[in-house]
Amino acid sequence: MADHVRSDAGAASRRRFMQQAGAGSAAVAAATLGLAAQDAEAAPAFDASYDVVVCGSGCGGLASALFARWQGNSAVILEKAGSIGGTTAKAAFWYWVPNNEAMKKAGIADPKPDFLKYVARLSSPQTYDPAHPRLGLTPWEYDMCSAFYDSASPAAELLAAKGALPYRHVADVPDYFAELPEDKAPKGRVLVPKDAIPSMSDGGLVAVRTMSTKARQDGIPIRTGIRVTKVLQDKSGRVIGVEAKDELDATVRLRARKAVIFATGGFTHNAELRKNFLNGPIYGGCAAPSNEGDFVQIAGPLGAQLRNMNYAWTCPIPLEKAIAKDGSISGMFSVAGDSMLFVNKYGQRNVNEKLQYNELAQTFFEWDGAKAEYPNLVRIAVWDQRSQQHSASAEYGRLIVPPGTDDRHVIKGATLAELARAIDERLAKYASATGGAKLALDFLPNLQAAIARFNQLAKTGKDLDFQRGERIVEQLFNGDVKAEPGRSNATMWPLADAGPYYAALVVAGTLDTKGGPKTDTHGRVLDGADRPIPGLYGVGNCVASASGRAYWAGGATLGPIIAFAYRAANAAHAEGRSAT
Amino acid sequence: MADHVRSDAGAASRRRFMQQAGAGSAAVAAATLGLAAQDAEAAPAFDASYDVVVCGSGCGGLASALFARWQGNSAVILEKAGSIGGTTAKAAFWYWVPNNEAMKKAGIADPKPDFLKYVARLSSPQTYDPAHPRLGLTPWEYDMCSAFYDSASPAAELLAAKGALPYRHVADVPDYFAELPEDKAPKGRVLVPKDAIPSMSDGGLVAVRTMSTKARQDGIPIRTGIRVTKVLQDKSGRVIGVEAKDELDATVRLRARKAVIFATGGFTHNAELRKNFLNGPIYGGCAAPSNEGDFVQIAGPLGAQLRNMNYAWTCPIPLEKAIAKDGSISGMFSVAGDSMLFVNKYGQRNVNEKLQYNELAQTFFEWDGAKAEYPNLVRIAVWDQRSQQHSASAEYGRLIVPPGTDDRHVIKGATLAELARAIDERLAKYASATGGAKLALDFLPNLQAAIARFNQLAKTGKDLDFQRGERIVEQLFNGDVKAEPGRSNATMWPLADAGPYYAALVVAGTLDTKGGPKTDTHGRVLDGADRPIPGLYGVGNCVASASGRAYWAGGATLGPIIAFAYRAANAAHAEGRSAT
Repeated sequence: MADHVRSDAGAASRRRFMQQAGAGSAAVAAATLGLAAQDAEAAPAFDASYDVVVCGSGCGGLASALFARWQGNSAVILEKAGSIGGTTAKAAFWYWVPNNEAMKKAGIADPKPDFLKYVARLSSPQTYDPAHPRLGLTPWEYDMCSAFYDSASPAAELLAAKGALPYRHVADVPDYFAELPEDKAPKGRVLVPKDAIPSMSDGGLVAVRTMSTKARQDGIPIRTGIRVTKVLQDKSGRVIGVEAKDELDATVRLRARKAVIFATGGFTHNAELRKNFLNGPIYGGCAAPSNEGDFVQIAGPLGAQLRNMNYAWTCPIPLEKAIAKDGSISGMFSVAGDSMLFVNKYGQRNVNEKLQYNELAQTFFEWDGAKAEYPNLVRIAVWDQRSQQHSASAEYGRLIVPPGTDDRHVIKGATLAELARAIDERLAKYASATGGAKLALDFLPNLQAAIARFNQLAKTGKDLDFQRGERIVEQLFNGDVKAEPGRSNATMWPLADAGPYYAALVVAGTLDTKGGPKTDTHGRVLDGADRPIPGLYGVGNCVASASGRAYWAGGATLGPIIAFAYRAANAAHAEGRSAT
Repeated sequence: MADHVRSDAGAASRRRFMQQAGAGSAAVAAATLGLAAQDAEAAPAFDASYDVVVCGSGCGGLASALFARWQGNSAVILEKAGSIGGTTAKAAFWYWVPNNEAMKKAGIADPKPDFLKYVARLSSPQTYDPAHPRLGLTPWEYDMCSAFYDSASPAAELLAAKGALPYRHVADVPDYFAELPEDKAPKGRVLVPKDAIPSMSDGGLVAVRTMSTKARQDGIPIRTGIRVTKVLQDKSGRVIGVEAKDELDATVRLRARKAVIFATGGFTHNAELRKNFLNGPIYGGCAAPSNEGDFVQIAGPLGAQLRNMNYAWTCPIPLEKAIAKDGSISGMFSVAGDSMLFVNKYGQRNVNEKLQYNELAQTFFEWDGAKAEYPNLVRIAVWDQRSQQHSASAEYGRLIVPPGTDDRHVIKGATLAELARAIDERLAKYASATGGAKLALDFLPNLQAAIARFNQLAKTGKDLDFQRGERIVEQLFNGDVKAEPGRSNATMWPLADAGPYYAALVVAGTLDTKGGPKTDTHGRVLDGADRPIPGLYGVGNCVASASGRAYWAGGATLGPIIAFAYRAANAAHAEGRSAT
């Protein structure tokens, strides 16, 4: 990598950065610092200097910068993408806040010991022990979950009080395992941005708008197109800034007097990391396209430990959009339709289609150790005209979409036989991405048998095979269905005996991944000996989540992000470095 | 960590090391080298100096040292444990060698393109594409598999020719997916140490004996009780040696003029790494107890990339021995007995018990996303007096053991009801290690029904539910069963209507893990930018295997280890550093 900082391009880059950043007090800090041996020759001058340099402009970055700023620190936000908001801008932005103020007002108790039992029961089911002092969690997991409980509500309240993120309470949304005996507060922990529409699907756009507006009001520059490539350390190993590339590939270097906070997202869009770390074949996901695992790569040379690399916040996604790397892709949070079922390439229905999305996606990983294949690698959603007519929606990643919306993932057939032919053609087109998945020779009769069995069960409203619709969360995400007064199970209805029929190819994806460098409860990135790397912080999906494989509830991603942004900013503020 | 090298303890340690190493030509190299900044203050003197320092004394370490020595290099082997051989000493030591000389003599063709198709089909089934130039593998995966094919046979031949590892050909052992159309050489790739007993279970002991004898004959000191803690680099980043602790916790430093080669095994016995990387809950395994992931920790600060961290060479293991960290534990390579079945805590039979061990273990990871549990986390093997009498053996990790051998994992009952009570008591004892796994209230009737169904299928010899015994590999590992002339399926026989009955608790384990620092095809450890870390090599389970999730055949661990030991030693020999 050429050292552009001394070149004309570098000077132009500095000027450009400073102009964009509206630099005044944050004037060029040209001091040449004592860097570690490998950087000594570069003798970098910094293009600008802040107390806190935040990388990433999703919720984690925005909140970290705001919390740091409100304590009197100067801060800047660097965003790799050309627009702000990261994955947050695509999210519904439910945020799961234990023991929140609205719960207290509503008289819903959420004591910490009970909360931690619910969390531990789901995050580490194979070691969960209610009698154990840490409930069977490792010390790190326990401490992180405990810190989340402590700080989520104070963080949410401060964001609301400052006008950065006013919220409303969604008292009736259940946790995803609300029926577990360990869940003593099964409803009440979910907040959403105040001005989100009633369906709440635009919460992320609202949050990015309110938080970024507040950031700008409070003097936090947000710079897009700045791709951080490297963390700079002084001779002692303290992190003193970052090196980045701007849109024109010129190098910029920013000094961080107190801390660099990474909030750059996970590795959803890095196929190499996905394949080498995740617990099953994942085809991409609805994380921002810029979530390419940058912090895994950047923190590696610093000796950071990686943790929870095997799990992700998973959800099913349509195959075609995943392969196309369509930035608009949404996870299938809602698998809509009552006269709708999933089959695999053998035409077998072998899953509860309404399983909560994280759990549903995990069923795609099932492995057949005799055939040496993933029999459910690509599942086929099949629905009829009834569901097409009554359950179509463009929200929450539904496969059944209204006329006029992007429906390139939808396969159509006047009969089931025609549909099967069309499915096979579509599969053939994507064979190189699926290990050659194609329909079995007896797919059509098996599909017909699967539909007959499903219809039989649907008539009774009782899914004896896969218990569809029996859990609270499955009804939550059922979407609109045609009213059928008096029926007992709103998630099931027999498919019509005649076409047209519709289908779509579904694979496993992520909202984003869960693994990355390990941090302590203050967001400080830890080295191999569990010592903080001085001045380096991480928040959100770019660092290791202590949730293990669990998806506790809607907003289980953003609740901890807000809590740890708060904790990281507080710790960064306390870093004892004086301004140069 | 105190710098003991200057202390009396350090001097004593040096003397001790040199005495043990029989140092002559490898005299103390007291030169103080220019080390990287963080080591400069330590100003280490080296206690001894070799061309190649090898860490680990299993097959990977022994072979690397021998290959390096035979090219004229001085070499030493450092072993953390108190005795030599690592996991190899516990292995049957089949080694899978494509296109080996014995195959050629027997007229069995094994052309490289076909071999690579079989390997790719199993290692990356979700991307396998026979028409793709790399068969759907990543460039790294393809190159590594290609290098394995090229070097396994030359390496095996050289070891045999030198007398370090004479072999015999096991022409009738099939690959584990011998029936796949991609396997054009389904038998013939397996070699075993020449003097192994007919059952081949002691191959590892034979190999360690012959290889270590040869090493000592050829002047390679093998030092036990030396725990390498750190790799030492010079200012340029070149690896110049290691720092280690001896049995008395004194520091020793060894200079490596050409290379340090790690062959220290995986992270089977590091619960933290298992939990944060593997694709399911693993309880330990039959890797040497010293396989604690040392190289993951040591290579981290050097900026090495980690790859294939999600997969392991898996096998079922008995719960009690895993929890006890019993160093004698063996993987259940052979699930013996015909009148024997597995059920889960619900009393359900839901697996083909004779699945090849790696695949069988993976079925323990199945996840129930509605109940939020691993329903098969602990499976229960149940057998009757017939199997006890005719299938007992102390070899290959069988659960059914003969009188007089360690049978603390065996649970007994005169009736099924008594057996169920005893199982529940045993499970209660281990509740804290299993997330509280206990028998369902209807376990006994379900078990009775499962046995009735199994017996019905066994009478016909056709397992309509799980296809037990239908694949070649399942017969290979069936073990001894009572002769029943004329029956069609030697893996199944009805359980007796009357007791006594026997049971054992089974969980998922490993032979060892598959992930670690990424190397190139010459065993050179790569940094985050795919640049070799000069002078640093890795071989075997301590580095990333390109096999993905696949267990291609018996010996799929040791075949590549021998190939890459050969390639690493050749590359290390060529390192252009002159002796000091």
